[in-house]
Amino acid sequence: MTFNYLRRVYLSDTDAAGVVYFAKGLEICHEAYEESLADAGISLKQMICLGETALPIVHAEIDFIRPLFCGDQIQVNLVTSLVQDSEFAIAYQIFSVDNLEQILLRAQTRHVCINPQLRQRINLPTAVLEWLNRFQAVGN
Amino acid sequence: MTFNYLRRVYLSDTDAAGVVYFAKGLEICHEAYEESLADAGISLKQMICLGETALPIVHAEIDFIRPLFCGDQIQVNLVTSLVQDSEFAIAYQIFSVDNLEQILLRAQTRHVCINPQLRQRINLPTAVLEWLNRFQAVGN
Amino acid sequence: MTFNYLRRVYLSDTDAAGVVYFAKGLEICHEAYEESLADAGISLKQMICLGETALPIVHAEIDFIRPLFCGDQIQVNLVTSLVQDSEFAIAYQIFSVDNLEQILLRAQTRHVCINPQLRQRINLPTAVLEWLNRFQAVGN
Amino acid sequence: MTFNYLRRVYLSDTDAAGVVYFAKGLEICHEAYEESLADAGISLKQMICLGETALPIVHAEIDFIRPLFCGDQIQVNLVTSLVQDSEFAIAYQIFSVDNLEQILLRAQTRHVCINPQLRQRINLPTAVLEWLNRFQAVGN
Repeated sequence: MTFNYLRRVYLSDTDAAGVVYFAKGLEICHEAYEESLADAGISLKQMICLGETALPIVHAEIDFIRPLFCGDQIQVNLVTSLVQDSEFAIAYQIFSVDNLEQILLRAQTRHVCINPQLRQRINLPTAVLEWLNRFQAVGN
Repeated sequence: MTFNYLRRVYLSDTDAAGVVYFAKGLEICHEAYEESLADAGISLKQMICLGETALPIVHAEIDFIRPLFCGDQIQVNLVTSLVQDSEFAIAYQIFSVDNLEQILLRAQTRHVCINPQLRQRINLPTAVLEWLNRFQAVGN
Repeated sequence: MTFNYLRRVYLSDTDAAGVVYFAKGLEICHEAYEESLADAGISLKQMICLGETALPIVHAEIDFIRPLFCGDQIQVNLVTSLVQDSEFAIAYQIFSVDNLEQILLRAQTRHVCINPQLRQRINLPTAVLEWLNRFQAVGN
Repeated sequence: MTFNYLRRVYLSDTDAAGVVYFAKGLEICHEAYEESLADAGISLKQMICLGETALPIVHAEIDFIRPLFCGDQIQVNLVTSLVQDSEFAIAYQIFSVDNLEQILLRAQTRHVCINPQLRQRINLPTAVLEWLNRFQAVGN
C-alpha cells in the first residue's frame, strides 16, 4: 500500500530563483513520513520523550524532474522497505494534484534505529515493523 | 468570519530545546494566510509571475503562551483588518485541536501593497479588499 | 558594548518574491544571539545537554525597513537588557556592510529563564547575567 | 584546490531529536557553494536579477557519518567537477574544526545550467567554467 499526503507549496518553501529550494523538497517528503507514522499510531513526540529509540537518517537523495512553484497543490506518495533488523528505507514521489501522471520529484531516505543515548544500533520496534509492513513497496 | 487552518507540528519545526523554534511559529501563521488567500481565489503564484503587485510584511510579532511539541495537531485562526488603502494587518491565534480553549500562541503580521519593481506603495487590488472583507475581525 | 555579527544572505533565506522571507529575518538575528553567547563562553549545547536551564523566547517582533537580497553582506548589531531576575530582552539592527548608516531591519526578542522539565521560571544563571552586562544597551 | 567554509551549527539547524535536521545538512553545504561563487566574483543576486541563467539542482544526496550538535564549529570542504557543457557537480565534506580528521557528513549536488524563462538547458557561462576550474577535484 502507498501512503498519500496532500500539501500546498508555501512561500517559505521557495527561493529567489522562483521555485522550491532543493532541500525543502526533502523536508516535504519527511512530513509525509511523519504523517504515515501518525497514521499507524506511532508518536514521534513520545519516542523523543522516552529517549529510548531514535530513527536518524543516514542517507537521503532527491531528483528534481520538474520545478515546483509557490501555491502548487502536490501529492506525496511514499512506500517503505526493510533493509535489515535495524534499518529501513523510504521512497517518495511527488506529483501535482492536477496531473497525477506527471512526476515532479523523486526522493529516498534511509533510516537506522538507534539508542539515542549510546548512539548504537538496536532492532526496530514492533510498531515500526508493522508500519513498514503496511506501506511496503510492492515486490519487497 | 475567522479562517481556520489545521496542521501538524513537524520535526523540522522544532529545535534541540525540544519545542517549536520561535521563527517557525511565524512561518506556520504565514501558511494559514496563504491558505486563506487561496480560499478566496487569490493566487500568490500568479501575483509573483505578473510582477505588478507584492504584499511584503513590514512588521511581525509573536507571543508564545504554551510550548508546541513535535506531532501536535494545531489549529490556526486568522482575522484580517484594513489599515489604510495600501496596508492591512492579520491577527493569528494557534490552539491545540485537542483543546480549543487553550491558546498556544498569538501573532500578527502587517503587510503593505507595493509595486515590486519600483518598491513603492500602491492601493490594494479589489481581490485583496474582498479577501480582507471576508475574514475581517469583528468590530472592525 | 554592542555585539556585531557578519553574515551573507543565502538563497535559502529568500523566497519567490525575491527578498528575504520575513521569518528568516528573525532566524538571522537569533544566530547573532547564539554567537554572542559563544563569545561570552556560554555553550547552548551544554545547556541543552544538562537540561536544567532553558531560555525560550516568549515574544519576538521585527520591522522591515529595506529589503534584503540574496548575496547581500550584512552586519547584525545586538544589545541586551535585563527585564527581571528571570527575563531578558535583546534588540537587533541589521545593516548592509556596504552602508552602515542605512538600517535594513530592526528586531527584538524577549526570553525567560525556565527549568525545562517543570517549565517554570527560575533566576538567570550568573554566566547569563555576565553576558547581559557585557552587551547591555547604553542607558540601561 | 578545495574551497573551505567555516560555520557554527545554530539552534535553527537542529530538531527535537537533538541533532542537525537532515535537510539542513544540505542547506549548510549550499551555503559553502554560494560562498565559493562569491569568492570567484560570481553574484547570484545579479544572475537572478538578469534572469538569463539559472543553475538549479537536479540531484542531491547526503550521507551522515556522525551527528552534528548545536554550537559545533564546522568546516565544509567543497570540490567541483564539470559533467557536461550544461552541467556540473559539487562534492562536500563536513568536519568538526576541532578534529579535521573526522568526517561528519558527505554530500553531493548536481546542477544544470538553464534559461529560467524557457527552462531549457544552455551552456555554462565562462565565469562559472572558471569557478569550476578553480575548485576542481584532483584527478578530474
